[in-house]
Amino acid sequence: MRAKVYVTLKPGVHDPAGKAVVGGLNHLGFDEVKGVRIGKFFEIELDEGPDAEARLKAMCEKLLANTVIERYRVEIA
Amino acid sequence: MRAKVYVTLKPGVHDPAGKAVVGGLNHLGFDEVKGVRIGKFFEIELDEGPDAEARLKAMCEKLLANTVIERYRVEIA
Repeated sequence: MRAKVYVTLKPGVHDPAGKAVVGGLNHLGFDEVKGVRIGKFFEIELDEGPDAEARLKAMCEKLLANTVIERYRVEIA
Repeated sequence: MRAKVYVTLKPGVHDPAGKAVVGGLNHLGFDEVKGVRIGKFFEIELDEGPDAEARLKAMCEKLLANTVIERYRVEIA
């Protein structure tokens, strides 16, 4: 089975890389861009199991996300 | 308006970071995980315009994605 995990910075957490992208896009002429926040996602290929969703959340808590500053969303395809 | 841009490695492009995540998850006891590919996404806040989608694609081509090894998907919320 396949799952997707989206990890984003929590609101209020400073995102300097996102700010740099805004600057870059504005500089290239895309003046309509006002803000960018960067996140990452993981496409995970895993064996099926009855508790897949709970285990995916555990993976996020333990490795994929830094829950102090990030939140995550699990999507099972 | 808000848009999301998802950037992923093209199939066949080696993803050493994803391989490292597989190793880490297996090591933590998540033996069901067989593969991971890592992508990134951008949450973009921008002023509305009639050609927003075309302009977002141009942003991907010029800055957000390396189209030699990555593909992108634009989603307008």
